[in-house]
Amino acid sequence: MTPPAIERWHDFISGGHDPAVLDALLADEVVFYSPALFSPQEGREKTAMYLTAAAKVFGGTDFRYEGQWFAEESAVLEFAATIDGKYVNGIDMIAWNGDGLITSFKVMIRPFSALQLVMGKMAELLQPS
Amino acid sequence: MTPPAIERWHDFISGGHDPAVLDALLADEVVFYSPALFSPQEGREKTAMYLTAAAKVFGGTDFRYEGQWFAEESAVLEFAATIDGKYVNGIDMIAWNGDGLITSFKVMIRPFSALQLVMGKMAELLQPS
Repeated sequence: MTPPAIERWHDFISGGHDPAVLDALLADEVVFYSPALFSPQEGREKTAMYLTAAAKVFGGTDFRYEGQWFAEESAVLEFAATIDGKYVNGIDMIAWNGDGLITSFKVMIRPFSALQLVMGKMAELLQPS
Repeated sequence: MTPPAIERWHDFISGGHDPAVLDALLADEVVFYSPALFSPQEGREKTAMYLTAAAKVFGGTDFRYEGQWFAEESAVLEFAATIDGKYVNGIDMIAWNGDGLITSFKVMIRPFSALQLVMGKMAELLQPS
């Protein structure tokens, strides 16, 4: 049985990236750990900003989850996608609380060239306009 | 209960990196997936070479495992360490066969600067002399 937090995360990813779905899924104190940056990004607003940008970068590609591993109140989901002809492989490491709200979201990406590619695309979306 | 393959991997890491322990733990057809390179590294010899080099890079640091997630015949272990004053965070994604031998070993590292650092150290160890 898939934990509710993961089920709702899949709903967000496959359901057209509805901001309301994402917002209802994140705890106030959620922390986002970027594959690129050392500094944790704290709070629901920053986390939603990063996850929405990531969903845009991977949206319209062949993004798919290829594996899942579970612990008590957390999971690791492996993903793969092709962006600009390049293979991108990574994991989402997701923890949630007793209410099923996500409290921590960490992303790692390999190989090096894929991380560079995603960082460039994320920067384009996140730079102040 | 920790799966035998993971228990033996921990033995290798904490037991002074005995090549015989590693050799006995890898299936002939094992594949290593680098955090840096796209190309899978096939076979026991190449995989042992990479894992031994990685053990050297992280040996003598404060390397520790900080989380573990399981599936049927695979696991994800999260690690953290400080190398040259820099925080290195990553995962080992390990799959094994019915005999408890490792068939796949994938590594991802974050943040970007940590991946660059580890790539440099690995290259020093792996370059042909």
